[in-house]
Amino acid sequence: MNKKGILVVISGFSGAGKGTLMKELLRRYDKYALSISATTRRPREGEENGREYFFKTKEEFEQMIADGELIEYAQYVSNYYGTPKEYVYKCLEDGKDVILEIEIQGALKVKEKFPQTLLIFVTPPSAEELKRRLVGRGTETAQVIANRMNRAVEESAYMDQYDYLLVNDDLDAATVELHELIQSQHKKLSENLPFVGQIQKELEELQK
Amino acid sequence: MNKKGILVVISGFSGAGKGTLMKELLRRYDKYALSISATTRRPREGEENGREYFFKTKEEFEQMIADGELIEYAQYVSNYYGTPKEYVYKCLEDGKDVILEIEIQGALKVKEKFPQTLLIFVTPPSAEELKRRLVGRGTETAQVIANRMNRAVEESAYMDQYDYLLVNDDLDAATVELHELIQSQHKKLSENLPFVGQIQKELEELQK
Repeated sequence: MNKKGILVVISGFSGAGKGTLMKELLRRYDKYALSISATTRRPREGEENGREYFFKTKEEFEQMIADGELIEYAQYVSNYYGTPKEYVYKCLEDGKDVILEIEIQGALKVKEKFPQTLLIFVTPPSAEELKRRLVGRGTETAQVIANRMNRAVEESAYMDQYDYLLVNDDLDAATVELHELIQSQHKKLSENLPFVGQIQKELEELQK
Repeated sequence: MNKKGILVVISGFSGAGKGTLMKELLRRYDKYALSISATTRRPREGEENGREYFFKTKEEFEQMIADGELIEYAQYVSNYYGTPKEYVYKCLEDGKDVILEIEIQGALKVKEKFPQTLLIFVTPPSAEELKRRLVGRGTETAQVIANRMNRAVEESAYMDQYDYLLVNDDLDAATVELHELIQSQHKKLSENLPFVGQIQKELEELQK
């Protein structure tokens, strides 16, 4: 029916498994594009411009803000992070559903600008499980784990601002559920107004 | 997650294939219950009370209206048709997603009373195809076909009041799409507020 893509924002607690879920979604289905953020932080070993991030100088980034080229942006630890419009729009026009993996404040800004955006919050099945996953990684200090748990408490206050909640208990099931959830949105009436107008016109013509 | 069922209203043009679609949905998945209407019209050959309809006298039906026992009702050709609350509520409590196959005016009344209701409009892929199906049945007179086409024109004016549009081109595909669409609704934030409250509480306790 409608050929244009849908803008999807995915947020969730650190440790909810968003990254793995996104990778699996893109590996299985070719309908999706992952939005690439712009940032002023330096590339890490192995990162490529235009793959992990669009790497920008502070001046370039501020020029993008001034020119209205970002859907949303924020500053963390003296670096800018933002979502360039151009790549997102191009993918949507190509009929891809575009996934933005961003944190809550950014997500709410995007929804405000584009109310049609689908906001999905990814969560582990319980708080205990979230803690278990954070500890289980074994790579983080107690302080980092405590910080993430504190942040999760803060973030949980905004969960009810999202459209849908996806419980990531099993990667395989969650990937399929996420795919079905996004594809169902293509059936929204508001996504199909041209089809509705067309069939109304055709019916009237056949009635004559 | 949430265990209570969802109320789903399915409408669509006569000839859209709703009946076959419902049968196929119920045959394949055991999560659904089809609401049974009450009516004052007489049972036809082979119809059973409590299966096709709850057959009522005019007095019984009007008592049900007076007692607020119907979710919606309407009068057609001097007979009443309505949706009894009791059966629907019982199925929802049992965790079944309950499907009401009713026409547009009834659908909009249900949505007004229960804003959480999922309204789905089923349509053939084109007006030409709708006409072809109506003619193709071979059982209807030209007048009946013309009446149905006129009614389709009237009904098409209300399509945009629905939440989702389901194009029934292929029975197999439409059945799966309908199932996925309804199941996705269980992930709505508004359907998961107890889970959200629970995880917020747990996170705060773990933070201490």
